[in-house]
Amino acid sequence: MAEATANIGVIGLAAMGSNLARNLAHHGNTVALYNRHYDRTEKLMAEHGSEGKFVPSKTVEEFVASLSKPRTAIIMVKAGAPTDAVINELADAMEPGDIIVDGGNSYFMDTIRREKDIRARGFHYVGCGVSGGEEGALNGPSMMPGGTEESWQTLGPILKSIAAVAEGEPCVTHIGENGAGHFVKMVHNGIEYADMQLIAESYDLMRRGLGLDPGEIADVFGQWNTTELNSYLIEITAEVLHQTDAKTGKPLVDLIVDHAGMKGTGTWTVQTALSLAIPVTGIAEAVFARGLSSQAEQREEAAKQQLTGPSGSLDIPADEREAFIEDIRHALYASKIVAYAQGFDEINAGAKEYDWKIDLAAVARIWRGGCIIRAQFLNVVSDAFESGEANVSLLFAPYFKTAIEEAQESWRRVVARAATYGIPVPAFSSSLSYYDGLRSKRLPAALIQGQRDFFGAHTYGRVDASGAFHTLWAEDGRPEIEA
Amino acid sequence: MAEATANIGVIGLAAMGSNLARNLAHHGNTVALYNRHYDRTEKLMAEHGSEGKFVPSKTVEEFVASLSKPRTAIIMVKAGAPTDAVINELADAMEPGDIIVDGGNSYFMDTIRREKDIRARGFHYVGCGVSGGEEGALNGPSMMPGGTEESWQTLGPILKSIAAVAEGEPCVTHIGENGAGHFVKMVHNGIEYADMQLIAESYDLMRRGLGLDPGEIADVFGQWNTTELNSYLIEITAEVLHQTDAKTGKPLVDLIVDHAGMKGTGTWTVQTALSLAIPVTGIAEAVFARGLSSQAEQREEAAKQQLTGPSGSLDIPADEREAFIEDIRHALYASKIVAYAQGFDEINAGAKEYDWKIDLAAVARIWRGGCIIRAQFLNVVSDAFESGEANVSLLFAPYFKTAIEEAQESWRRVVARAATYGIPVPAFSSSLSYYDGLRSKRLPAALIQGQRDFFGAHTYGRVDASGAFHTLWAEDGRPEIEA
Repeated sequence: MAEATANIGVIGLAAMGSNLARNLAHHGNTVALYNRHYDRTEKLMAEHGSEGKFVPSKTVEEFVASLSKPRTAIIMVKAGAPTDAVINELADAMEPGDIIVDGGNSYFMDTIRREKDIRARGFHYVGCGVSGGEEGALNGPSMMPGGTEESWQTLGPILKSIAAVAEGEPCVTHIGENGAGHFVKMVHNGIEYADMQLIAESYDLMRRGLGLDPGEIADVFGQWNTTELNSYLIEITAEVLHQTDAKTGKPLVDLIVDHAGMKGTGTWTVQTALSLAIPVTGIAEAVFARGLSSQAEQREEAAKQQLTGPSGSLDIPADEREAFIEDIRHALYASKIVAYAQGFDEINAGAKEYDWKIDLAAVARIWRGGCIIRAQFLNVVSDAFESGEANVSLLFAPYFKTAIEEAQESWRRVVARAATYGIPVPAFSSSLSYYDGLRSKRLPAALIQGQRDFFGAHTYGRVDASGAFHTLWAEDGRPEIEA
Repeated sequence: MAEATANIGVIGLAAMGSNLARNLAHHGNTVALYNRHYDRTEKLMAEHGSEGKFVPSKTVEEFVASLSKPRTAIIMVKAGAPTDAVINELADAMEPGDIIVDGGNSYFMDTIRREKDIRARGFHYVGCGVSGGEEGALNGPSMMPGGTEESWQTLGPILKSIAAVAEGEPCVTHIGENGAGHFVKMVHNGIEYADMQLIAESYDLMRRGLGLDPGEIADVFGQWNTTELNSYLIEITAEVLHQTDAKTGKPLVDLIVDHAGMKGTGTWTVQTALSLAIPVTGIAEAVFARGLSSQAEQREEAAKQQLTGPSGSLDIPADEREAFIEDIRHALYASKIVAYAQGFDEINAGAKEYDWKIDLAAVARIWRGGCIIRAQFLNVVSDAFESGEANVSLLFAPYFKTAIEEAQESWRRVVARAATYGIPVPAFSSSLSYYDGLRSKRLPAALIQGQRDFFGAHTYGRVDASGAFHTLWAEDGRPEIEA
C-alpha cells in the first residue's frame, strides 16, 4: 500500500476534475488521483505531472490509502447514479471521520439524502458547488461547500488555497449544513440563466429592433462593461459578438443554431422556488425562453404558417438611437436587480425551509470572483445584505431602490416599445410586472379570492376583521358571511 | 355480512364525497357508503337517505361486502398519506379484479406509483380527476379517469350517469393508462390559474387603470360573457364584483384581503412542465402572481418605503374608454388562447413521456361542462384537435390564428400602456412575448449558445453544417472550429 502522503484527493479526472487537481497541486497540496479508467490518470500525469505533487492510484483502495487523515476526497463525476456509486466505493474503503466531498452539480435534495446516509456511517459528507467552468477549476473557481462545521475546519484551508480571489478574499465560504452548498449553487445557476436571457433580449432589441450588426452591438456591450453592468457575462458577450467565422467571414453568432441548451440547474431553481412559493419570474422566463427556442417543430410550423405580427423593427429615428440604447441598458440593469432580488429571496426561503443559517452577504461576496455571474455589482449586493438594508428584499436597499428609480422610465419605454413592435422581452417585462406588483397597495388577488370562494368555498380574509369568511353567493342575492 | 347489492361505493363523506354519493344515487346507482367516523355517514343518511338507494357501513369489511362484483369503490379523502391508508385498507378487504378509484386531487406521479403497486396485487386502480367543486360533484362534474381499458368498461357507464352534460355528451372520457387522468386534471387546474389571472389583470386595468368601480366592471364582464369569452369564470366574476357587503354596503371585493391562496395543483403543473421542457409561461406567471400577492412582509415593506413608479392611472380620455375596454377584452382573449395552447402542449408532452394515448379533442370536449374552466371556447378547441389543425399547436388552427391576428393590435396596446403607466400584467405580457418568440425566425438563443460555448465548452450547432462545434474563443483571436 502507498504511504499516506496526500492531504486531498480527486476522484474523476475528466476536464473539471483534472483542472481542479492541477489547481490543488499548484497551491502546495499533495493530490491523490483516481479515475475509473487509468489511462486518463496516466494522461494527466504525463501532461501535467511536473506541475506539483500528485499521487496516482489504480484502485479506490490504493487511493484511500494514499490520503492522510482525516482523509478528504473530492468526487468530480456525473451527478446522479455515478455519484452514488463512487460515494459507496469510497465509504467502503474509508474510515469514520473521513470527509467525502461531492464537487458536481448534484440536486440539493440528493445531497441532503446522501449526507444523512453517509453521516450515519460516521463520515462527513460535503456537497460543494463549484462554479467557473473548466477555466475556473484550473485558475480559481467560486466554491459553495455545505456539510458540517467540523468538515469545514479541514476542508476550508484547502479550498481557500485554490479559490478565485476577489478584493483580496478567497471566493469560498461555508454555506451551511448538508445540502446548503448545492442549493446556493443551484440558485447561482438560475440567476445566470436570467442574466443571460436579459443580455439576449438586449441584443435582440438592438439587432432586430434597431438594425445594428453584431460588431456594433459588441461595441455597445464593450462600453456597457465600463458601467455598473461590468461583469464577466457582459464581457464575453462582446467577445462572442465580435467573433467572425473563419470559414465564411460572417459574424459567428449568425451561424449558430438558435436553440438554447440546458443542463437542469435552471429548471431545478424554478421548480424549487415553486415549492417554496417564491416568485422567481425572471429566472422562469429565462428557462422557458430556452425551452421555446428548442421547440423545433413548433417554430418551423410558425415560420411556414407565417404567424402575423409586426416585423420587430422598433421604428426609432436615427437621432434617437443612442438614447434608446441607453434605455435598453437601464432596462437590463433594472431587470437584473429584480432577478437577483428574487434569487436571494429563494435562498432565504430555502434556508428557512431546510433550517440552514446562510449569510447572504457572504454568498454575494464569494460570487464576486471565479463564477459565471461574477460582477462588480455583487460588491453592492454584499454591502446591502451586510448592513441589513436588504433584509426583506434587495429591492429595498437604498442603492438599488434608487437605481430602479433612475432606470424605470427607460425600462417602461423599452417594454412598451417591444410589445408594440413585436420583439419578445419575456424577462424584461415579467421583471417589470413583478416590480409593479410588489409596489401595488391593492392587488386584484382579492378578486381571485372571491372567485375561489364562489366555486370552491375556499373562504377569504377580510381587511376589517380577522378569521376566515365564506359568502353564500348564490342564495337570493343576499350575501351572508360566516366565520 | 350485508348482501352485495351496491354497484358503486364511496369512501370518505366530506363535502365532495357526500355530494358525489348523492349524485350517484340520484341516477339509479345503489351506493355503498363508508366514512372513518360513522356520524358523518349517519348525517348523510338522515338528511339525504331518501334521495336514492344507499347502503351505509360501519367498517371497511362491511362496505366491501355490500358491493357487487367487480366491486368498485371511489375514494374521496385527502391526497397523500390518507389516500394511501385507505387504499391499503380497501385492498386488504377486496378481491383481485375489483376496482379502486381515487377521486381526489392526487399528484399524477403518486397515481403512477399506486397503480403499479395495486395492479401487482391483482386490482384495477383508477386515478380519476373530478372537477366542478362541491356543486359539480352533486349536479354533474367533469371527470378524467385514468387506469386500464378494462376498468373503464365497468366504471364508464357509472361515471357517465353522473357527469355534467355538454352538447348532449357526458363530460367524462377514458383519458389513458395509470396516471393520465390525474395528469390531465392537474393541467386543467393550471389552465384555471391562468384564466383567473387574466381576468384579474383585466379587472385591475379597469379598476386602477380606468377608475371604474366594481359594479361597472361587473357589467363589463357580464357583457363579455355574451362574446367568445363566454365561460363560467367570466360569469362568476360578474357575480363576485356585483356582490355588496351586507355589513358595510361597500363592494365586497374591496373588503377581501388581496392574498391569493393555492392548493398545489397549479404549482405541480408548472413544475411538471419544467421537467418536460414545455414553456407554460401564462400558468407560471399566474402561480407566481398568487405567490407575490401573499408575500405579506415584502408588500408591507414596499408600501412603507413607497417604491416609486407611476400611479397606475392609464390616462385614457373619457371618449376613448370604451375602445380601451374593448382592447382589454381582446388582450384577454389572445392571452387565453396562448395559455390553452401551452396547457395542451404540456398534455401532449406528458403523453409522450409517460406513454399515454390521449385524445386532446376528447379532453377539450369533457371540459365543456361541469368543470371550472367550462366555456363555449372549448367547442372550437375540440374541433381544432379533431380536425388535426392543432396537431403542432392550438395557435396554428386557422380559427385561433385568425382570432389572434384580430386581437393582437389591442393586445400590444394594452401591454404597452400597462408597462408605461405601472399596472402589473404578468400573464398578458408573458403570453405576448411567447407569441412573438414563437413567430421569430431567429431568436437570440444563438447568442446564449455562443456564451455557453465560451464559458462552458458546451458546443453549438451550425446552421450550415451538422454536428457539434466548439470555438477556441480565447486563442489569439483566430477561431477554430472543431467537430
